[in-house]
Amino acid sequence: MPRRSFADFACSLARTLDVIGDPWTPLILRDIHLGVDTFNEIVRDLGISRALLTARLDLLVREQVVREVPYREHPPRVRYALTERGTQLVPILVALTQWGDRWTGDGEPPLLFTHACGAPLETAVTCTACGEPVGATGIEARPGPGGRHAPGTLVVAERLMGMTD
Amino acid sequence: MPRRSFADFACSLARTLDVIGDPWTPLILRDIHLGVDTFNEIVRDLGISRALLTARLDLLVREQVVREVPYREHPPRVRYALTERGTQLVPILVALTQWGDRWTGDGEPPLLFTHACGAPLETAVTCTACGEPVGATGIEARPGPGGRHAPGTLVVAERLMGMTD
Repeated sequence: MPRRSFADFACSLARTLDVIGDPWTPLILRDIHLGVDTFNEIVRDLGISRALLTARLDLLVREQVVREVPYREHPPRVRYALTERGTQLVPILVALTQWGDRWTGDGEPPLLFTHACGAPLETAVTCTACGEPVGATGIEARPGPGGRHAPGTLVVAERLMGMTD
Repeated sequence: MPRRSFADFACSLARTLDVIGDPWTPLILRDIHLGVDTFNEIVRDLGISRALLTARLDLLVREQVVREVPYREHPPRVRYALTERGTQLVPILVALTQWGDRWTGDGEPPLLFTHACGAPLETAVTCTACGEPVGATGIEARPGPGGRHAPGTLVVAERLMGMTD
């Protein structure tokens, strides 16, 4: 059951979701990051079907988020590793995990993270210019060079254009 | 076509994905954040089916990520607004958007963000204790009080237990 592609959306969030928006995919990336990085181990960890995992890994390799690393020649076997673009998703996945710790479940985090500085890791999304946390307010959005009056941003584009008139 | 629930996963990322893991949901939250906040506007902006949007909004309201704000009594009409927990997702969605700007599309960002400090917003995920960016390395994960040897963390749990032996 193929789902709607967002490829025609003039929206980088939609394009990101075309790559990692399937609910299994962040879990697959988390597993690979934590070293659960062979096909069979991921199947066993997540209980995902082999067909679905094959499809998800194919997409991730095609989109250069994950790469195959051969570790045996006869018979050929690969493990999976995050590429640079996959690696850049990890902190965002940790932030989503900590949102889940805070707002879902019973307040008992299944995983605890420690940062390299030695402190229990509590993530924040900050502005690289001023270092301050980014809140929902305090962000101004305006149409960029890739903006179009297209599906995915039809009303948003109108609205933002109006605001900048 | 209901998808597998991750409710039995001992994993806060999986629990987060049970709430916002449908690929449409981050786009719906983005729209509401940007003020495209009535049912009909969201339908027109995203081209999402009315049935699917109804289901997604019902879940978001039930999970207290979004709330209904009545704006007319006869006939009754509501707009949608982010709650505190919804608001806390916004910076993470901006980080995902900027990942998409960097790694997908043609390098022309459809939306440009400015931070309250005046600078073009470039997001980073940082550690609140030391203020340094969180990289894929430099995070140590270990089992927390809510950890279980359960689907979603079966192999991860074994691996982390082994590491802390």
